[in-house]
Amino acid sequence: MDLELANRLATASNTKIILCVLDGLGGLPRTETQRSELEQADTPNLDRLAKRSEVGLTVPVGPGITPGSGPGHLALFGYDPYRYDIGRGVLEAVGIDFDLGPDDVAARGNFCTLDAGGNITDRRAGRVATERSAALVERLRGIRLNGAEVLVEPVREHRFVLVLRGKGLGDAVSTTDPQRTGVQPLLAVAGNDGSARTAALVNEFVTRAREVLSNEEKANGLVLRGFAKYPDLPQFPRVWKLRAAALAVYPMYRGLARLAGMDALPCPGGIDDQLRTIRERLNDYDYFFVHYKYTDAAGEDGDFERKCHMVEQFDRRLPEFLDLGADVFMIAGDHSTPALMAAHSWHPVPFMLHSQYCRQGFAEHFNERECVRGSLGTFPAVDVMPLAMGHAGRFEKYGA
Amino acid sequence: MDLELANRLATASNTKIILCVLDGLGGLPRTETQRSELEQADTPNLDRLAKRSEVGLTVPVGPGITPGSGPGHLALFGYDPYRYDIGRGVLEAVGIDFDLGPDDVAARGNFCTLDAGGNITDRRAGRVATERSAALVERLRGIRLNGAEVLVEPVREHRFVLVLRGKGLGDAVSTTDPQRTGVQPLLAVAGNDGSARTAALVNEFVTRAREVLSNEEKANGLVLRGFAKYPDLPQFPRVWKLRAAALAVYPMYRGLARLAGMDALPCPGGIDDQLRTIRERLNDYDYFFVHYKYTDAAGEDGDFERKCHMVEQFDRRLPEFLDLGADVFMIAGDHSTPALMAAHSWHPVPFMLHSQYCRQGFAEHFNERECVRGSLGTFPAVDVMPLAMGHAGRFEKYGA
Repeated sequence: MDLELANRLATASNTKIILCVLDGLGGLPRTETQRSELEQADTPNLDRLAKRSEVGLTVPVGPGITPGSGPGHLALFGYDPYRYDIGRGVLEAVGIDFDLGPDDVAARGNFCTLDAGGNITDRRAGRVATERSAALVERLRGIRLNGAEVLVEPVREHRFVLVLRGKGLGDAVSTTDPQRTGVQPLLAVAGNDGSARTAALVNEFVTRAREVLSNEEKANGLVLRGFAKYPDLPQFPRVWKLRAAALAVYPMYRGLARLAGMDALPCPGGIDDQLRTIRERLNDYDYFFVHYKYTDAAGEDGDFERKCHMVEQFDRRLPEFLDLGADVFMIAGDHSTPALMAAHSWHPVPFMLHSQYCRQGFAEHFNERECVRGSLGTFPAVDVMPLAMGHAGRFEKYGA
Repeated sequence: MDLELANRLATASNTKIILCVLDGLGGLPRTETQRSELEQADTPNLDRLAKRSEVGLTVPVGPGITPGSGPGHLALFGYDPYRYDIGRGVLEAVGIDFDLGPDDVAARGNFCTLDAGGNITDRRAGRVATERSAALVERLRGIRLNGAEVLVEPVREHRFVLVLRGKGLGDAVSTTDPQRTGVQPLLAVAGNDGSARTAALVNEFVTRAREVLSNEEKANGLVLRGFAKYPDLPQFPRVWKLRAAALAVYPMYRGLARLAGMDALPCPGGIDDQLRTIRERLNDYDYFFVHYKYTDAAGEDGDFERKCHMVEQFDRRLPEFLDLGADVFMIAGDHSTPALMAAHSWHPVPFMLHSQYCRQGFAEHFNERECVRGSLGTFPAVDVMPLAMGHAGRFEKYGA
């Protein structure tokens, strides 16, 4: 829904909302058994809850469209994923807990190998070791540019983040990565007047970096892509009038939540920390976003059994989440990650919402097939927030 | 979805997509049996496929809206039928295989009968015989206008197509058909400056035609409507990055596909030719649109039994279509044509999509009732293309 309208309808209340995102939740049936991960997993608690909840399937972005983690989460937070976009560089920066500011332009960097003619021979510099890469990043930090501060952070192997910090730097800068070998890295080109200075700084940085790295055997070059500034997201707590906390172990999801204006609370120990923190901070917040990464990780690895196991692990802890006594408790996924595909997919994602105002459909279990006959049907993920607001008694009547 | 976005996400691949459109597929239950055409027809192959496919119902244009063949097909090709419109004159022209150009304004014409006062007494000139009509058209071709070439083509009975060919002719021209008897044909009026010259030419043509036809007893007048130019459709192969072929026996459907930029391949012998051509050209194209007219024709005639029979005829050939080995195989309808109504209707249309990445719902057969509980639910027909692209692995991930 339109966020201006959401804000106009949102009203103060004491009710609490918990959203548990099981990353990559949806799956596909295995040929031999015709059962998906959720159908095979033993999930007595999820199944019991499904029978007394509103159940359905969310479409993360649109039919047939496979979302990245950014749009998948933004939709669940109520942002139209077609309208609000988070650049690759920003995601990469928040993914390493980098504290991005409004004057920063972030890009994802790769070390690469160049031959004597300056042509790329390996786009990942032989997947240079993480420690070696960190040492190279340290040397890149010595580069000084006129008009912008240079910040470089290692990520993993050949990957790093470049941040140019300076007033008035636009982010409409083209990639320097030709996406193939045998050619030179591209020059950065500005897509608008406000980004001309950024493009010039980027090209100067690349030239200087080539000097700094010239004696390296493998990582003697670099490419940069996904130039992006801090996205101008309407802030979640203001829009929905909810004091919002994020409980995520992985930096990228903490970062995403922070971009939306949520407080990211520490929970290094996973579910134990997440449960304890919600219990302790229930008076300080109205909305808790709980992120559970392990379903997606197993799916991405194509490990059907482990994905089943990770669903079961969550199921075991579900009673503790319910004991927290939230007025609205939701289980969702940011997208499907079928083990069969070992990748994100476009398939709709099982969803359920429990409150004291639930209608039931016909879902007997919590899985892809049964959710088809839940009371919510198949609906856009961006509708999850308004639905939660309704069930939480946090929306005023529309019209007289 | 937005076609710019579709184009941005579309990516090269070797996968193949087949769409079989069973024209007017959806029906309504007969009172005596409470069974629709699809429920009564014996369709073991369709039913078997439905059990292992994603199944649902498409809404061609919008709830309650009965589509013509144009919008019904455009939606299945991914065009928002509210946004993209094909004028009646253009449809009529492509329906007789007329090779419409960018400088042409086409209109549908009817011969009519006028009394001594110039008032219409029969809007169809007593459904003048097709051969007689063709002879009259031959005489109309003798009319010369200053500033535009006059092209006239017979259609059937009292119907013909008028095309004015000339640079800079607009098509915002009002109908000359008052849609009732007892009054004179209307003067054509321009709806904008760019169409003033067209309107003047049209009125001149009508005056000259009246002279040419003055000795006719029945067809001594004519009315013209649906003035339209070649529609500016984003071309299907470019948007979706699919080499696309249309296999349709009837000219109107070949014409529609050509307007969208597909190649219309000859298949005068119907299904035999369609199957053979796909088999032979599988390396040349990525997308095949197969049109099956007979379900609609039977429905339009109000012939329930014959529509059942036509569905069964298609069912018998289904295994041969599946043997073609497409990565995505779909069965759809452009609209419903219930024999009970002997006309197109607004009812959603049974749909199924088969690929290796299918989820199943609860549909046990392929008919209107069972499709309600398919995994796809009821959804807009315009979503068929993005869905197919996802299943074909032809969409890149959206966002990071």
